[in-house]
Amino acid sequence: MRFKKPPSVISGACVVGKKEGEGPLAETFDIIENDSFFGERTWERAESAMQRRALNAALEKAGLRGGDIDFVFAGDLLNQCIASSFGLRGSEIPFFGVYGACATSAECLALAAMSIDGGYAGRAAAVTSSHFCTAERQFRFPLEYGGLRTPTAQWTATGAGAMILSSDGGGPYITHMTCGKIVDMGVADANNMGAAMAPAAYDTLCAYFDDTGSGPNNCDLIVTGDLGFVGSAILEDLFRRDGMDIKIRHRDCGLLIFSREDQDVGAGGSGCGCGASVLAGYLLDGLRKGKWSSILYAATGALLSTVSTQQRESIPGICHALRISSYI
Amino acid sequence: MRFKKPPSVISGACVVGKKEGEGPLAETFDIIENDSFFGERTWERAESAMQRRALNAALEKAGLRGGDIDFVFAGDLLNQCIASSFGLRGSEIPFFGVYGACATSAECLALAAMSIDGGYAGRAAAVTSSHFCTAERQFRFPLEYGGLRTPTAQWTATGAGAMILSSDGGGPYITHMTCGKIVDMGVADANNMGAAMAPAAYDTLCAYFDDTGSGPNNCDLIVTGDLGFVGSAILEDLFRRDGMDIKIRHRDCGLLIFSREDQDVGAGGSGCGCGASVLAGYLLDGLRKGKWSSILYAATGALLSTVSTQQRESIPGICHALRISSYI
Repeated sequence: MRFKKPPSVISGACVVGKKEGEGPLAETFDIIENDSFFGERTWERAESAMQRRALNAALEKAGLRGGDIDFVFAGDLLNQCIASSFGLRGSEIPFFGVYGACATSAECLALAAMSIDGGYAGRAAAVTSSHFCTAERQFRFPLEYGGLRTPTAQWTATGAGAMILSSDGGGPYITHMTCGKIVDMGVADANNMGAAMAPAAYDTLCAYFDDTGSGPNNCDLIVTGDLGFVGSAILEDLFRRDGMDIKIRHRDCGLLIFSREDQDVGAGGSGCGCGASVLAGYLLDGLRKGKWSSILYAATGALLSTVSTQQRESIPGICHALRISSYI
Repeated sequence: MRFKKPPSVISGACVVGKKEGEGPLAETFDIIENDSFFGERTWERAESAMQRRALNAALEKAGLRGGDIDFVFAGDLLNQCIASSFGLRGSEIPFFGVYGACATSAECLALAAMSIDGGYAGRAAAVTSSHFCTAERQFRFPLEYGGLRTPTAQWTATGAGAMILSSDGGGPYITHMTCGKIVDMGVADANNMGAAMAPAAYDTLCAYFDDTGSGPNNCDLIVTGDLGFVGSAILEDLFRRDGMDIKIRHRDCGLLIFSREDQDVGAGGSGCGCGASVLAGYLLDGLRKGKWSSILYAATGALLSTVSTQQRESIPGICHALRISSYI
């Protein structure tokens, strides 16, 4: 879909944890919190607090208050998306809950952009989070257990990203959006979600290129979030088979947020807060400063649960892509 | 929000389980399946099968195929919404995952309507499900345990509703939508979700009446889904305090789908498949046949999880309202 009057991302803010604050993007984050509890009594409350802080910081940057926002689209990875519902319950903003696994950030932005371009909202917010500790104990093992990880496993980033979209503003603009189909190639290893999601990224990016009559070279950067090391290699290989080399323009939020050499994060970062905080900070900054003039942000999600894995299901993947540009 | 060119609900289909098929609305369901497994090997797969069957039935009624649909908006109550992602992974339709607890049906319809009225889609589908057995073991106890229920607890309906919206068609039309705010009045009893959700329903209905300059008497029916017996009484009482008697026009999907006298369902039905299957069958039928000319469908959700309850949190509620009318 092409937006007739592309909404402007007037403000973005990101809140991350200690480990993310020690990574290569440290300078691009608004808030780095060393306490994994964010001052709360549980990690789930901490994740809610991250969403709240990210939204408040984004509002403050834009000189706005909650009442100036018509809708907030929000989601996270927790069962029944409680990081969002508890985090934003005091915001007094009409609330649309979204679930797209790690593609949630792009889905929230897409729907927010649609609500503005369609004339239903003047301003809308998109808020997404993940937290290493809540994800680890919900999806994997108790933290105290100290389970070892396979080399293909990714590290859920602790981060929240909030962005404010407006019908007017000086950009960057969300100009196009491709909503992905669910793609399931039969990968069933929950410790290798990059491999499960890469075919979805390929499918959505191909659909975007077809629909717009463009190719990988028509934007400065193709940023997936978060395929990690394994999934990124698969995606690049899939395009190589079509005779397209995307490697030079391809970045992955899971590989940007951490240093795999120094930070022991397996195949890279993941979690819907990873892409959201990289986009709200590093990528938007780069667009604003002219480092890039347009990027394709393709967030990928693995639509599994612990129950589906225990029931020996394969992992359906999804990817939603947004073109974000400093000009219309 | 008022839709400029109200999308038409060109088709709706509902699939329910045995108990729902023994209730007062039996004749309005498209498929009643006596096997709680729907021929599958797990209840989760059964719920996915319900979504698939409901969507396929709705497509068939409209004389359409999956490829004719631009987007599907879908959700359910399971962790990470796997009923939707696994149910619709073979559909080849661009997929937006939605989580709004038992308000999911209205949220899916609202976003689908927005995508059509905004010009992004010609046709969109909204699919929602819940299953007693998947919900019971995820949120409460193993089925085999046979846990007793408190009188205020509701009975999760086994049902899926699918509706196809189109930019053209003869109605019924979705003319207005109010996106709810999260309302948390401090109710913390997970066995009394009606009480937790009623204030959200009141808040959203008041917003709708204010925004449209109308009142309860401007539509033929106000249908909540699903407050049950306790929540419905609270909602009616809240309006009574404002000098408005909504009782005569108020119905609740949780009280319509089951007979509390004959079916031992506590305070009534619940689950996002309850409202969806009542709307896709009984309510749309009534609008088409002229029984009512306009209804306000106000789906309510309790945004809790087992973790939030164990952590002694209160229950945030939400309600999204749609005006559905046989004329524009």
